[in-house]
Amino acid sequence: MTKLLETAALEAALQEIADQRDWDQFHTPRNLILALTGEVGELAEIFQWLTDEQAEQIMQSDKAEHVRQEVSDVLLYLMRLVMVLGIDINAAVASKIALNAVKYPPTKS
Amino acid sequence: MTKLLETAALEAALQEIADQRDWDQFHTPRNLILALTGEVGELAEIFQWLTDEQAEQIMQSDKAEHVRQEVSDVLLYLMRLVMVLGIDINAAVASKIALNAVKYPPTKS
Amino acid sequence: MTKLLETAALEAALQEIADQRDWDQFHTPRNLILALTGEVGELAEIFQWLTDEQAEQIMQSDKAEHVRQEVSDVLLYLMRLVMVLGIDINAAVASKIALNAVKYPPTKS
Amino acid sequence: MTKLLETAALEAALQEIADQRDWDQFHTPRNLILALTGEVGELAEIFQWLTDEQAEQIMQSDKAEHVRQEVSDVLLYLMRLVMVLGIDINAAVASKIALNAVKYPPTKS
Repeated sequence: MTKLLETAALEAALQEIADQRDWDQFHTPRNLILALTGEVGELAEIFQWLTDEQAEQIMQSDKAEHVRQEVSDVLLYLMRLVMVLGIDINAAVASKIALNAVKYPPTKS
Repeated sequence: MTKLLETAALEAALQEIADQRDWDQFHTPRNLILALTGEVGELAEIFQWLTDEQAEQIMQSDKAEHVRQEVSDVLLYLMRLVMVLGIDINAAVASKIALNAVKYPPTKS
Repeated sequence: MTKLLETAALEAALQEIADQRDWDQFHTPRNLILALTGEVGELAEIFQWLTDEQAEQIMQSDKAEHVRQEVSDVLLYLMRLVMVLGIDINAAVASKIALNAVKYPPTKS
Repeated sequence: MTKLLETAALEAALQEIADQRDWDQFHTPRNLILALTGEVGELAEIFQWLTDEQAEQIMQSDKAEHVRQEVSDVLLYLMRLVMVLGIDINAAVASKIALNAVKYPPTKS
């Protein structure tokens, strides 16, 4: 069965980066949640003064690369959190999607 | 070459879920960033009164399932944002990791 | 000279509340920033699926009391952070407004 | 009776600043919540790699002014949100404190 999400290569790369820089000592769960908060804040700042129309066209603007970088930073800290907590993120996401499907049945809203 | 991150099956599943519920109309970039902020807040709340030691043991506690669910919610809204913006998240992450490697060279900190 | 912001009575009330509950031990700077993140997340959740028009009318809706409560929670944790860090918030805000006035001169945007 | 919180002078100053720069058009509720998220993120970034001990001593460090500025930015955007929503923040905070007193009775924890 195909996994929803395959992160093994990314996790290996992030662990190698952390090992080469002795970063595991800093990557505690609470530190990583503060870092995640910081990156979501940077992402929010890009969009804070935009109209919904401007936001929808942002990837055709000169802000596109900035958005790609901040979205990536959010994902990278989230993955580090997943790693230090030892979470199987594919299983967790599959389970949450199943829960959501019960909570929000597929009747058109 | 192996991709760092394989999200095609997850993106397909999330699109099917959104289609079945007419959710695309709600999943605008700014809405999704507010939703992402909400989920990071819920994740932060689990850890807010814990010591660093308690946080490191959280997956051996009765909070483990709650953590898995909130981490998954953060990832799911981030992926929806990636999807509505049309970002190739594997390429974006690979590019950001390369940028970070220049910014933080692998000398031990 | 009138102070921009007078918080002495609030700070006294919050300290009494904390003293009566032995909360100072939990109100560390990092804990309070995580708690602040949580409350901003709860505030964001109220607005996440609203249009700009709905958001502007929210205080005439049945969500008004919820908004008042979450805005208050953000302020209360921010004030506790200010207190444990020993910041003179009136002086800090006056100084920041002066800095901003230089950064953004009053030419109409 | 003394008010817990006196913000009239600050609100007047912020309105004058906004008027001089035509900022009311940008200060919509959702924009301000995104801006608030951004500032909380900047505050979190100052603390993300600190130990609890370092965080408690931060106002004796060279990061003190940065902390004062980010705390002020959080407060300023929160106050602008309060203003555009027409919330009486003193009354809202008093009401929330009363609610919390019921939720968390003053038995020592």
